[in-house]
Amino acid sequence: MDAVNLAQKLALIDDRWRPRIVAAVNDFHVKLVKVKGEFVWHTHEDEDELFLVLSGSFVVEMRDRSVALSEGELFVVPRGVEHRPVAEEEASILVLERAETAHTGGQRTAMTVQEQEWI
Amino acid sequence: MDAVNLAQKLALIDDRWRPRIVAAVNDFHVKLVKVKGEFVWHTHEDEDELFLVLSGSFVVEMRDRSVALSEGELFVVPRGVEHRPVAEEEASILVLERAETAHTGGQRTAMTVQEQEWI
Repeated sequence: MDAVNLAQKLALIDDRWRPRIVAAVNDFHVKLVKVKGEFVWHTHEDEDELFLVLSGSFVVEMRDRSVALSEGELFVVPRGVEHRPVAEEEASILVLERAETAHTGGQRTAMTVQEQEWI
Repeated sequence: MDAVNLAQKLALIDDRWRPRIVAAVNDFHVKLVKVKGEFVWHTHEDEDELFLVLSGSFVVEMRDRSVALSEGELFVVPRGVEHRPVAEEEASILVLERAETAHTGGQRTAMTVQEQEWI
């Protein structure tokens, strides 16, 4: 493996809500994703999920509260907590989670990506 | 847990080579550390270790090659690979590794931090 330049990888992504894997660390994956609009409500029963905002801003909606994130801020959605990512404008996000984490948890939706790709 | 602002957390760190934990994601920890100079050669037998440069630049020396990293670049040192982080000028680094990862692997040195703190 060589160094991974996050800006160069992000420049290769021209769609939204499709995470691309950029690194594996033991059984975890580091992913990049561009987002805009509303994702689907979903839950990962056994996996925590970290979001770090690389550019733009982003809201993690949960049923009892929301957490707004700006560039350089991170938040961990605890396993078992239903959540929906929302971004008014396009944002670039680094996601960290177990490799086995399903994109939309136990839900299967039109936005669900089943086989996540490396970039 | 609330949002974690990386710049605010880094502003609280006024020493070097002492990682502080800022988030837990399942059995992984996300840590911040300021570095300058040469660390010690060490190996994590079972844990990969990710370094992401938040500011400055940083070299991961390995016995057969070195990888230079600038701001916004990451690199994963594979488990079992001896390495030594080196920074000519102060750099701020995000480290991602299993919670159980020993600071200097199997080596115990004057730089070794045994109990890593949250910040």
